[in-house]
Order: sequence, then structure tokens, then C-alpha cells
Amino acid sequence: MSSIITSTANERIKRIRALRMRKERDRTGLAYVEGIRTVTEALLLDVPLAALVVAPDLLRSETALQRVQQARERGTDVIEVSEHVFRSLSKRDGPQGLAAVLHQQWTELDDVSLAPGERWVALEETADAGNLGTLLRSCDGAGAAGAILLDHTTDPYDPVAMRASTGAIFTRRIVRAPWGAFVDWARSGGVTLVGTSDQGAQDYRSADYGERTVLVLGSERAGLAAERQTACDVVVRIPMMGRIDSLNLAVAGSLVLYEVLHQRLAAGLVADEQVQA
Amino acid sequence: MSSIITSTANERIKRIRALRMRKERDRTGLAYVEGIRTVTEALLLDVPLAALVVAPDLLRSETALQRVQQARERGTDVIEVSEHVFRSLSKRDGPQGLAAVLHQQWTELDDVSLAPGERWVALEETADAGNLGTLLRSCDGAGAAGAILLDHTTDPYDPVAMRASTGAIFTRRIVRAPWGAFVDWARSGGVTLVGTSDQGAQDYRSADYGERTVLVLGSERAGLAAERQTACDVVVRIPMMGRIDSLNLAVAGSLVLYEVLHQRLAAGLVADEQVQA
Repeated sequence: MSSIITSTANERIKRIRALRMRKERDRTGLAYVEGIRTVTEALLLDVPLAALVVAPDLLRSETALQRVQQARERGTDVIEVSEHVFRSLSKRDGPQGLAAVLHQQWTELDDVSLAPGERWVALEETADAGNLGTLLRSCDGAGAAGAILLDHTTDPYDPVAMRASTGAIFTRRIVRAPWGAFVDWARSGGVTLVGTSDQGAQDYRSADYGERTVLVLGSERAGLAAERQTACDVVVRIPMMGRIDSLNLAVAGSLVLYEVLHQRLAAGLVADEQVQA
Repeated sequence: MSSIITSTANERIKRIRALRMRKERDRTGLAYVEGIRTVTEALLLDVPLAALVVAPDLLRSETALQRVQQARERGTDVIEVSEHVFRSLSKRDGPQGLAAVLHQQWTELDDVSLAPGERWVALEETADAGNLGTLLRSCDGAGAAGAILLDHTTDPYDPVAMRASTGAIFTRRIVRAPWGAFVDWARSGGVTLVGTSDQGAQDYRSADYGERTVLVLGSERAGLAAERQTACDVVVRIPMMGRIDSLNLAVAGSLVLYEVLHQRLAAGLVADEQVQA
């Protein structure tokens, strides 16, 4: 049993705190995630952990304490810290005393091959971590397999993105790719690229999404660049009835993902029993 | 021409800064909004302003400067401040030097009467200001007239909510009401109350939304309370294909709002020409 760390200047604590910075996450391939629900989900899904971080004075949930004990028995490193130290790592009000340092999981684009019915999203330059996490959550909901992060898209292992994903960061496959390689991959894999734009030629409700679909979303500010729309097989638009010319990025992506799901269900390409009641 | 305020301790500046707090916004009926796009939109829509706040050293846009001049000529109070003072009021990186103190606009529930085809949202206890603003943006997009904020729903004049609304706070009608009065109002107005829940009996794609619809959304954490679901005419669910049992609140609300729009368009209850190309 290791002793409780009580100093915020402890070397391990300083290294964990540094994971707030994307540069350090990129360098180490690690990420820091907190909250009973999310950490429990990571344990249930066998996400590879570098360590659990526990503040015994904060962690009251019996279930959570049992899971920590089980993980310890399976060999997971458990770092015990004082409430003060835990709060120094935490970005949230009312920290629950349970966090994890986990190994980021990435899929290589070349290892992705779409089966009939399969759909993904690709994000051109999503800037907002909350939007990225919310989209991953919608991917889980709509049965999209994962997200391809193009070029300068924000980090899905940003704490804000992980929290907004409510665990979808662990259930969806995540790929990084430059635009050119992505388009080549789509062409050779028989993938229908579906762009979204307020200038799109097809209403999203009546578009043909093909059998293997990647929905391509532009940035929050500029939308999908014109030359990238040209590279798409179809560009869909969402009707806008009011003064505002666009929806929130995660909302727009979710509307199209659920339209694709609906068409797949109608075509029998997704088994109905997959749908949770 | 008034002189430029250079002290962050100036009394007017202190009163404006206090508008960050909900208590002060509730007390005064005012709100503070910044950003060229949003303030310009407020001016175009004739939102009643208490004052414009301008930092000449930051505001570079010729168009924005012209609009400020026009507002001044129409009698709007223009408070000129130093860059330092403006930054002390600003919550954003790269402040643009234009902000407004505006009078909150509220509609009384008794003044709302739904025409055939009309739809609204009602929010039970939305806690997240970003979600509330994003939903207002989707209301504008899907042509929903406004939002009824029930009980303890968060403040739509929170700066985060206003920013997420991208101007929809000015184009949608906003009502506050306690649950009981809301249900009485709906009953007497022939309104179909549509709840959302993962336990809903109807898939949201096949539900009957009636001619006059209010979509009732529960809180982010707990969803719509069981006894409130009972008060609804229909409770819809969104299919969830993965591990996660719910979508982001603004995403879920937007999916249903766009389904209602789709059904209205199909039924000819919304004129197609209202749809922006």
C-alpha cells in the first residue's frame, strides 16, 4: 500500500497536471479523465490505464471503491492523493475523488474498411472540444463507428471533449488523417463522402447516402471549404427557417447522422434489435 | 461627445461588470452581450439597448463603427472605454471592442396562443447555459417560435447562453412559467405536449405531434420526471444504438424539432418558401 500524496508539487502530480496541455498529451500519448461515471466506464471497457487517481476523503461511492479495489488486484497502479491534491488536478466543481490517467487509443486510417451500412464522421477543423465530444456521443447514439479527425481538428482527449462525450471516446474508433490521404482512402474503399453546407444541393432528408458513408463536417466558423465540398459525392443542406444561417456543428452533424440511421433502418441495413428500447 | 472611461473602478463599469451575475441581471432586467456579430444583430433587430460599449482602440470594423454612429444619432447612449476597461468586462479571447447593455425581453405565458402549425420548446430544468443557447439557435433554424423556461431553468441572458444562441435570443420569444400554470395553459390552448425520454412509447420519427406542439425537455442529468411525462400527450424516444443511454440535451431537442418541421412541411402547414435555400 503506497502512502497518500499530500503535496501538489509531487513529481507525479506535476506530470499528471501537465496533461491539461495538449502538447504534453501529444508527447506522452496519455490523457487525464475524472468523474465516477467516466472512470467506471473506462474500467468496464478495459481502456488501458497508466494509473487510477483516488482521493479517499472525497470518494464516497461504495461501488466506485469496489471497482478501484478490483483494478488494484488486477495490477492497476492506484495513486492515492489528499483532497487538496485532487482538487489541484480537478477542473470541476464538486470533484468526486476518482480519476484516471489513460493511454490514448488511436486507429490507423489504413486499418479502417467500411462494411455495408457502416458510417463515420470526418471533421475538417472542429475547434470546439465540447462540440467534438458531443458529436462522439451522437456517433455512439446513432451507431456511427467513429470519427476521422482531419488536419487541425481539436484533441478528442481534451478533458472538455472527453466529458462531453460521456464515454463515447471509449466506444468509438478515432483516426487522425490529412485531407489528401483521407480522400484517397475514401475513393479506394467505395465510401460515399457526404459534405454538409448551407449551400448544399440536396436536402438532408432526401439525399442518397450510399452504402458506406462518411459525413464530412467543416469548421464552426467557416463551414466546409468550397474545394472540399467539390471532393464530396453529395453535399447536403439542412433547412433553415429563421434568421440564422447555420446550426451548432454538433447539432447539424447529429441531424444528418440520425437521418442516415433512419435510412439504414428502413433499408434493413441495420438490424432493428440493435436499437435499444 | 463623452470622454473615454479609463478606470475599471468607474461606477458605470462596475455596474456593467456586475451583470455577469444572474442576481444582478434578474434585479435590473439588463444583460451584457459582446461581439460585433451579436451586437450588430441586436441593432438590426431593434433590441432595446441601455447603452453600447465601445473600445475605439479595439474596434476596427468600418461597418461596426458606422452602426455605432447610426445608433448614437438615433439617441443610443454610447459608452467609450479604454482597451484595458473593455478587457476587464470581456470574457473572451480577442475581444472585438463592441458590446451592448440590453433590456431583457420576456413574453408573458398568457400572451402566447399557438396558431396551427406553431411549435415551441419547454425546458424543465436545463442547467447548462450553452445547451439553452444552442437550443434557441435550433429553434430559429427549425422555425420554432420560442422557449418556455419552466421552474429552475438557467438564464437565457447568461453570456454563455446568448453567445451559443448566435442571435436567436433576439429572434425567439422567451417565457418563464411554473409547471402547473404551463400545463393549464397547454390544456386550454389545445396544445399537444410532447415529452422526450429514453422510456418514451413512440419513436420520434413516427409520433403524432398534433397541430400545435410544445416539446418538453427534461434536465441534462435526470431527464424528464416521470410525473411530468404522464402529463404529456405523447412521450417520444430517440433510438440509441450504442452504450450511452442519452444524447446531449440540445442535440435531442433539435432532432425532435426538425422532425416536427419535416412533418409540418409534408402536411403543408409550413410554406416551403419560408425555407431558406
